[in-house]
This record gives sequence, structure tokens and C-alpha cells, in this order.
Amino acid sequence: MNTAKRAAQLLSSHNVTSLFDSVEAFLFDCDGVIWKGDKLIDGVSQTLEMLRSKGKKLVFVTNNSTKSRRQYAKKFNSLGISVREDEIFSSSFAAAMYLKVNNFPREKGGEGILEELQLAGYTGLGGPEDGEKRAEWKSNSLFEHDKSVGAVVVGLDPHINYYKLQYGTLCIRENPGCLFIATNRDAVGHMTDLQEWPGAGCMVAAMCGSTEREPIVVGKPSTFMMDFLLQKFQVSTSKMCMVGDRLDTDILFGKNAGCKTLLVLSGVTNQSTLEDPSSTIQPDYYTSNISDCLHLLGP
Amino acid sequence: MNTAKRAAQLLSSHNVTSLFDSVEAFLFDCDGVIWKGDKLIDGVSQTLEMLRSKGKKLVFVTNNSTKSRRQYAKKFNSLGISVREDEIFSSSFAAAMYLKVNNFPREKGGEGILEELQLAGYTGLGGPEDGEKRAEWKSNSLFEHDKSVGAVVVGLDPHINYYKLQYGTLCIRENPGCLFIATNRDAVGHMTDLQEWPGAGCMVAAMCGSTEREPIVVGKPSTFMMDFLLQKFQVSTSKMCMVGDRLDTDILFGKNAGCKTLLVLSGVTNQSTLEDPSSTIQPDYYTSNISDCLHLLGP
Repeated sequence: MNTAKRAAQLLSSHNVTSLFDSVEAFLFDCDGVIWKGDKLIDGVSQTLEMLRSKGKKLVFVTNNSTKSRRQYAKKFNSLGISVREDEIFSSSFAAAMYLKVNNFPREKGGEGILEELQLAGYTGLGGPEDGEKRAEWKSNSLFEHDKSVGAVVVGLDPHINYYKLQYGTLCIRENPGCLFIATNRDAVGHMTDLQEWPGAGCMVAAMCGSTEREPIVVGKPSTFMMDFLLQKFQVSTSKMCMVGDRLDTDILFGKNAGCKTLLVLSGVTNQSTLEDPSSTIQPDYYTSNISDCLHLLGP
Repeated sequence: MNTAKRAAQLLSSHNVTSLFDSVEAFLFDCDGVIWKGDKLIDGVSQTLEMLRSKGKKLVFVTNNSTKSRRQYAKKFNSLGISVREDEIFSSSFAAAMYLKVNNFPREKGGEGILEELQLAGYTGLGGPEDGEKRAEWKSNSLFEHDKSVGAVVVGLDPHINYYKLQYGTLCIRENPGCLFIATNRDAVGHMTDLQEWPGAGCMVAAMCGSTEREPIVVGKPSTFMMDFLLQKFQVSTSKMCMVGDRLDTDILFGKNAGCKTLLVLSGVTNQSTLEDPSSTIQPDYYTSNISDCLHLLGP
């Protein structure tokens, strides 16, 4: 317990103006901030419009790797919010960029990560069709894997199964130099509006359990994505505010990168968790919902 | 690195007699010692016969939870080895005994653990039929779980899926006082003769990843099973020898319980791993295969 930690301030009409005046770009987490599952959180649309009208840059930084940037832009638009692909930084994109920066030739990943990998020029194996594959224990029969796979990318995967676990485990244990990349390690997330579900932290832990290896994490709280964000938006991180619902990913990411931080209580963190002495990661500000900004800033 | 560790002695004609004369009961791990998958390891049958003919007690202590004691006895007999149910101490049995000792009313486990739970008088949920269940993210729809479940038992499960992970996660996170029990945490095991596969450590880690909780481990290296073994066999642990292929489960279990320890190189540990300075757990003796005892002890 760090007794010297600085407690978060409740966002109020007294401090909201100085925060907004000092910030040029707002970085938003999505699950639990913008939406829960397929439902927009109340007032999000008007809040984002207000911020754009005031000339603020908007960026969406999500650890959920089940969609590519194109698929995220489509989801935003289907919910009535106009967002461009280049305003979205997903952990699926981060995984593809990590491979590109490290010049790796092939990979075996899971899920919607594949579209980002393809866009970055990679040949991906795996994906949804492996969800129905079965791995059977048979005498005299070898479970074969591609020995040229140079990276295993693990993200949120509702189609997790023993086939994929054995495939990834064999690549990591037996292919020389094979990378083990995790999009993120969120324990749970609001995959639906009514409840939380196991997150990528569950699948990543499973792979750690069988390989006894630790992954390279490219999503929040790692600041790997920030380099790409800074290339796109010429804004100093001290003039950015990271808005999220998780202390150990969003708020830590913001702090690691030197941004201001705002916790919203509309997702996985409630006020008692925030105020618990074991919560050593504290945001600069907190509020119940991003639409509070609308009321606090006034007409 | 513990430089003061005592290096293992190769079993030889010089030390084998004193080991055998001082031991009344041999405790054997199964996977990688007795068999690999469904194939007996060479010479096992004759070795066990020789030990019985010399009046040694034989006990089989396995972390593999996919079978009940009855199913294990059947497997031994189908491979031509006569073993009684009460000579078998499996982690499935240990999980059931843990619940019994702690007087818990119901549980949600996985797999062949269910038979042991039923024998111990428990109502189990889950099992192979849940392997085909799917968990879908749907708006306005709640994934329901039984709020009376008092324990989640996680073991080796080749039918791992998102449905089971969400079910177990909800019980552990939301049911007051719900226990999280792991049969064992073996990273990998010789589920087939030709290669290793993810072990219970993989499924247990997945559940740790989503719940951010640590389990109670009832299998090796925990000595929980030893109490039941001592009730059955009136032999002091100093007159027992634990024979296994894993340093971090079998050999550590033997050392924790005060037994002599013999590592066999017929499973997951090879000589270079044994001799690596990072291997701080060292057996008293090691040999390539349990049938070496036959040759070393002579006719």
C-alpha cells in the first residue's frame, strides 16, 4: 500500500475547465466508456460531438482485439457516431505493428487480429475456423504444427479450445525464436451490456500456463501504441487526457505515457474499488460517465 | 540459484540395494513413468511384479484428473497390470476429499472429476456435455449461473471452452465464499506417447487470469493427498520412495512429504534439465526408466 499516492479528484464544475483548456486530444477506451457490448452508454454521442465542436482531437485506444480498425469504424458508424479508421488504435493493430517493426515473416494468431495482420502484409494462420477444430489424444499420432511460425499472438478469443492451445504451445516451445505476443491482459470486460466476461487475460494466462513463458504485451498499459499515435497526432502527451474505466490498463497506460487521466465509473471499476487502499493506481480525475462533461462545462 | 543444493545421484548397482532395503512403499507417478498416453513404458510390468514379489507396497499418485480411481484401475488392468482401486490416489479423488473434509455442499467441476465427486456424495455440474456448449455475447441477455455453487474444481480439460470459463468465473467472482480448487498445475504432460500437451496448469491459469484469484492446489506438489495415503498404508514417509518424471510436482511432493525421491528420465524431464543450475529441486536419485531397477538389483 502506497500511502503517498495522490487521491483522484472528482470531476466538478471547479476543475473541469482547467482540464479541458489544457487538453488538445482525448484518448478514449471503448468497452465500459463508449459502449457496453453493443449498447452505447447514455450521452456518449452528444459528448463526442461537443468535444469535436470545441476542436479537440479524438482518439480511441482499445485493448479489445476481436475487431480490426476497419471493423471498429463500422461499429461506431452503426451506432450513429462518425469515427475515422485512423482515429482508432486497437490492440489488433498494435500486434500487427509490433511484427512489422520487428520484421517478422509469419504468424499464428487468433481472431479478428488476422485482418490487421493481413493489412500489414502478414500471412496469418488460425482464426475463427479453428474454433471448431478438435485435438484428440491418439496413440502413434503426432499433432503437427507449422515449424516456420515466428510469432504467436494471443488476444480475446471466445472460441478458445484445446486445439489452439496445443498449436500455440508447440510453436512457442519448439519453434526457435518464436515470439509470444499478447494483445492485452484484461481479466474481464463488458462484452455485453449486462455483465462482464473473461477477457484476453484469461487466454493469455492459459498460454503462459502451458508454456511457462511470459508474453510481450502490446496493448494498454504498455505504451507501445503511443509511438504510432504520436506519429499521427502531433500533440505532446502532456496535452492528452486518457479516459478509461480500468485502473490497471487505461489509467496506468495514461500515466506511463505522461498523459492526464480520467477514470469513468461506467465500466468495470466502481467507487469503492477506486477508494480501496489496495488501488495504488489513481487517476487525476474521476466521474461517473463521460457525459458528465456536458453538464459540467455548461451550454 | 541455490549452489548449496545436493546433486542427484545416478541410480547404480552401488546404491540401489541400500535404497530398496530402506523403502517399504514405492509411490509412482503414472504419465511418463508407467505409461505415455495409452502405451506402457518398456519393462514396467516386470518391474512392478518384482517389487510386489519382494513385499513392497505399491501406490500410484497421479495429478491427471481426467479419470476416477475406478477408471484408473480399469486402465491398469487393460494394460495387463493388476492394480487395486485403493492403491490409486488421483487428483480427482483428492478434490473430492478436499470438499468432504471441508464439508461443502455442491460444486461445479469439470471432467472425470465428477465420478469421484459423486462417490463422495456430491452433486456435480459440468462435465463432458458442457464441452459442446457455447457462450454468446448477446445484448439484453444474461448468462445465468447457479448461485448455490460452493466450489469450482479445475483440472485437465481437453474440452475447455468459453462457456465453462465464464461459468466458473461467475461462480468464483459472485458466489459468496465459493472455493477455487485446482487438481494440479502441471504445465504439460505426455497425454500421448509421441508428444506433450497442455496440462491442468493451462486451464487453472486461464481461470486465474479471469478471476485474479489463486487456487487451492490438492494434487502434487501439495501433500494434501498424503494424509489419505497414510490412513491406508501404515508406513512412515521416510520409508517411502516417490518415483516421478517431474521435478516441480513429483519430486517436490516427495521432498515436501519427507519421502526418498527417484526421478526417471522417461517423461518430461531430461538429463540436461536436471543438471541445469536453475533446477533447484533435486531428487535423491535418478535413472532413465523404472525398469533399470530390474537390471541393477540383478536376478
